[in-house]
Amino acid sequence: MPRVAIDLLGGDAGPEVVADAIASYLTAPGDERTELCVVGPIERARELLGARGVDLDASGGHRVLHAEACVPMTASSQDTLALLREREDVSSAVGIRAVRDGQADAFVSIGHTGATVAASVLGLGRLPGMGRPGLAVELPSARGPVVLVDCGAAPFATEHDLVRFAACGLAYAQARGIPEPTVGLLSIGSERGKGDRLRKTTDVALEEHFAEKYVGAVEGHDLVGESPADVVVVDGFTGNVALKSMEGALRWSVAAMSKVYDDPEPARGVLRTSHFLSGGVLLGVPGAVVVGHGASARDEIVACIHRAEQLLDGAVVDRLRRSLVGFASLDARGEPEGE
Amino acid sequence: MPRVAIDLLGGDAGPEVVADAIASYLTAPGDERTELCVVGPIERARELLGARGVDLDASGGHRVLHAEACVPMTASSQDTLALLREREDVSSAVGIRAVRDGQADAFVSIGHTGATVAASVLGLGRLPGMGRPGLAVELPSARGPVVLVDCGAAPFATEHDLVRFAACGLAYAQARGIPEPTVGLLSIGSERGKGDRLRKTTDVALEEHFAEKYVGAVEGHDLVGESPADVVVVDGFTGNVALKSMEGALRWSVAAMSKVYDDPEPARGVLRTSHFLSGGVLLGVPGAVVVGHGASARDEIVACIHRAEQLLDGAVVDRLRRSLVGFASLDARGEPEGE
Repeated sequence: MPRVAIDLLGGDAGPEVVADAIASYLTAPGDERTELCVVGPIERARELLGARGVDLDASGGHRVLHAEACVPMTASSQDTLALLREREDVSSAVGIRAVRDGQADAFVSIGHTGATVAASVLGLGRLPGMGRPGLAVELPSARGPVVLVDCGAAPFATEHDLVRFAACGLAYAQARGIPEPTVGLLSIGSERGKGDRLRKTTDVALEEHFAEKYVGAVEGHDLVGESPADVVVVDGFTGNVALKSMEGALRWSVAAMSKVYDDPEPARGVLRTSHFLSGGVLLGVPGAVVVGHGASARDEIVACIHRAEQLLDGAVVDRLRRSLVGFASLDARGEPEGE
Repeated sequence: MPRVAIDLLGGDAGPEVVADAIASYLTAPGDERTELCVVGPIERARELLGARGVDLDASGGHRVLHAEACVPMTASSQDTLALLREREDVSSAVGIRAVRDGQADAFVSIGHTGATVAASVLGLGRLPGMGRPGLAVELPSARGPVVLVDCGAAPFATEHDLVRFAACGLAYAQARGIPEPTVGLLSIGSERGKGDRLRKTTDVALEEHFAEKYVGAVEGHDLVGESPADVVVVDGFTGNVALKSMEGALRWSVAAMSKVYDDPEPARGVLRTSHFLSGGVLLGVPGAVVVGHGASARDEIVACIHRAEQLLDGAVVDRLRRSLVGFASLDARGEPEGE
């Protein structure tokens, strides 16, 4: 039975909503349950979950991994790294160590994204051949999910990283049931190589590495709904702006639709089931890590747990490892790392 | 009476939709009409407008400025520049020359954005103190329009350009009725200076130039609806990705809402009145230039004509010129131009 560690701390709304999600997950109908490890202060976890009818000591193996601290949602990258180095009991680091040491098979957190990414790299390292890890988010489209990598883990990504995002994204898309996925580069026109220097060099590198699997540029307006590629790669700065801009537009639209239809409920339903808003998967580390949106509500956190199960069912980390073998040998031969 | 030149050529759907817009504009009720100059092939213009009940020769001054060619919507920047240099009769250049020579007060085009931007800089030059011109789009928010600059005119913008975008954006926001506008920097976190090198140096420069008018970072999800600043500056690459991502999310949402409410009309209405999708204003050239979305429908093109009238009513070019005076003297003293 898979074991998923879940971060009780972090997130915009505090541990209550995570406790709601854990209780909702554990009491949902179904036979085989994933075993959950709650990462947080032991007494507080018992109390929060007890109040929701979950007895952590009694209920089939669910238990608490003690963590006292968490990285504040507004912490700078510098402060995040300092905290992770100073203290042993930061929840993201405790969860990642549980994965490293085999106490858990996956880690789910809606805490500070940078903290989860940093704790993952510090605790697990990177898969051979990988550069900076990338955060992959699944966007809805008519023909299945479109995988956008990176959505913010690597704001300083280089061409070297983007090529690895493509390899990981393609392997991930296959795990999600797309037999022959294609990859595109997020840019500002359909013309090949349009954009800044990173786009120009990455265009050439993607063509070289992926040949006919590479379809060229994908524009922002095609990301949701009509992407010409199954996987779209981008540096984490631009990817994060794109994802958050889509989120803002969708929330604005839900407010506008609630008014024009004079009934907010169906519009809110569209927002609730827009799973691309609930979080992503960290690709490139030797472990299954799900990074949820800090503003996640209960059902979105439950969706993150299901996403962790999906990662394990699809043996995604093994697939990524295999997809990077060629890059590991390139690195060993001393391929330049880009800028 | 103001005179607006409008590009009959260009756009995704061909000249018919522009002719529809011209006819709709000219036949709408109202007293004082802006005089329109149609830029395109004379015979074709007469024919298209005649079929829509507009007699160009008879109707109070409306006339045609002859242009035979237009830059194809998929042209590369290289091909665009080559065409603008080779031929005299490219519609975007003809329209801009009309502004330069005083035959028109403003130019509106839904053609190739890069062509309109290039023709503007080649034909009009730049306002003293301006770097690369920026395309400003008004996003809806609860407290009034939020001005996003640049949305794609300057994909290679530097810190030097972003500071000028801020000056222009603030002057433009004042013209749009915001007495004490503030400015922010589009980035990936609320933390000051987070992001890549451009964001770090621009953060310092904006603080230096605009002091308390500068509110720091604005994230993608706050652009529509809840921006903490009246003006948000960004390089044209990221700005274009952000704008198009919002467009894609909104179109996707309209499709989803049409289904859940089982009635597409109100959702389509929200899309039609989302004017940020219909185009923007080129800031930093000595002329009023409106750049419409290539996929604009009739009413969106009419909205572009009204936007041109707004630019003229608000004496926006004069305001921008005044707001850049300090930068012109900085440039004269040899301020470094950034990277």
